[in-house]
Amino acid sequence: MQGDAKNAVVLLSGGLDSTTALAIAVEEGFACYALTFDYGQRHRFEIEAAKRIAKAFVVQGHVIVNIDLRTFGTSALTADIDVPKNRSLHEIGEGIPVTYVPARNTIFLSFALAYAETVGAEDIFIGINAVDYSGYPDCRPEFIEAYQKMARLATRSDVEEGQKLTIHTPLIMLTKAQIIRKGMQLGVDYSLTSSCYDPSGDGDACGHCDSCLLRKKGFTEAGVADPTRYIV
Amino acid sequence: MQGDAKNAVVLLSGGLDSTTALAIAVEEGFACYALTFDYGQRHRFEIEAAKRIAKAFVVQGHVIVNIDLRTFGTSALTADIDVPKNRSLHEIGEGIPVTYVPARNTIFLSFALAYAETVGAEDIFIGINAVDYSGYPDCRPEFIEAYQKMARLATRSDVEEGQKLTIHTPLIMLTKAQIIRKGMQLGVDYSLTSSCYDPSGDGDACGHCDSCLLRKKGFTEAGVADPTRYIV
Repeated sequence: MQGDAKNAVVLLSGGLDSTTALAIAVEEGFACYALTFDYGQRHRFEIEAAKRIAKAFVVQGHVIVNIDLRTFGTSALTADIDVPKNRSLHEIGEGIPVTYVPARNTIFLSFALAYAETVGAEDIFIGINAVDYSGYPDCRPEFIEAYQKMARLATRSDVEEGQKLTIHTPLIMLTKAQIIRKGMQLGVDYSLTSSCYDPSGDGDACGHCDSCLLRKKGFTEAGVADPTRYIV
Repeated sequence: MQGDAKNAVVLLSGGLDSTTALAIAVEEGFACYALTFDYGQRHRFEIEAAKRIAKAFVVQGHVIVNIDLRTFGTSALTADIDVPKNRSLHEIGEGIPVTYVPARNTIFLSFALAYAETVGAEDIFIGINAVDYSGYPDCRPEFIEAYQKMARLATRSDVEEGQKLTIHTPLIMLTKAQIIRKGMQLGVDYSLTSSCYDPSGDGDACGHCDSCLLRKKGFTEAGVADPTRYIV
């Protein structure tokens, strides 16, 4: 803990959303501990992005946890399935996409809970979004509410000193454009972030997967120049 | 799925409790998928025990997930802290022991949820126990109830077809002696199981850690010969 700052654990994928969530946690005065997962994702460049971002924000700690979600299921994010390209926004919004990884946010939050207990944090930030959430069940507000209730019963502090754990979802009701405007106000350098599901080896974005399309639309609607490097 | 049998995921540590939970799931007619964690535990022999047990019960699948909980916290189960020995049963029952691993059952159940979604299981078995639970907060019935509620909101099936996920805790209100009697009725060979927090390299039990003491007491109270090999 730094001075009077409260500690918080921030889930940091290296993408636009989680980076903005980190900026918000810092702005709110938390001493932040970043948590990133190497889960066998195809878009491994985002792990490098997360490292650069954690450094730029001078976090108190940054843990990268290796977990192999490829053991479970066949998401296009971890398996050899084609990432969908050039879908319409209508198609993106419908149903659960092939990029869904089983129980991903449940697993990520569970590790965040362990990290929080370790560093004495009562606050966890996760940059999930229910607006542009592309049909992931574990991005819904009712999921987060149920998770927080469970987490308050799961940990040592509940037994020993009464539980105050809070899961912060500062982006949950924002559009991508609103997220970007918020981040720009906070001085986020979005050129450091990586959102593409299928980037080149150098981390250049494909420009055509669901994540790229939503990100592009966000910059356009926010009226902000898109700093993303796309594969040409 | 085998014939008409429903699939279930069973958390299998290789210890007495989880092995009995597996026997119960099999008895209830489930086609079982076992899930074991290599989490940097000192008592790694239990992973070998889990493999032998999974084989003995002819499970449909057995996944061993590598996760490094040593990153978080300083439990005597993963770190270089002495495992407490020869504590009285009164001491064992008091407070949260140094063998507590932060958020362990939360993390384990989250992986079980991913596995369940992958194999189309709506049932998860976990051999936790609120009687001899040694003060772990994540062994309480109210924790499991909250977890199930969260899990029903977390997964694809909730969105697509209504959620039926059930977390089974068949041992939660049983004493160790009752667990052993139940397992003996089901033909469990407890010589295959490993409960010790601090075994020898050959898997012989120390006989003096909390887990050994509770196990010994269980066999005595059940009136069953203890098949455990102890370090002499």
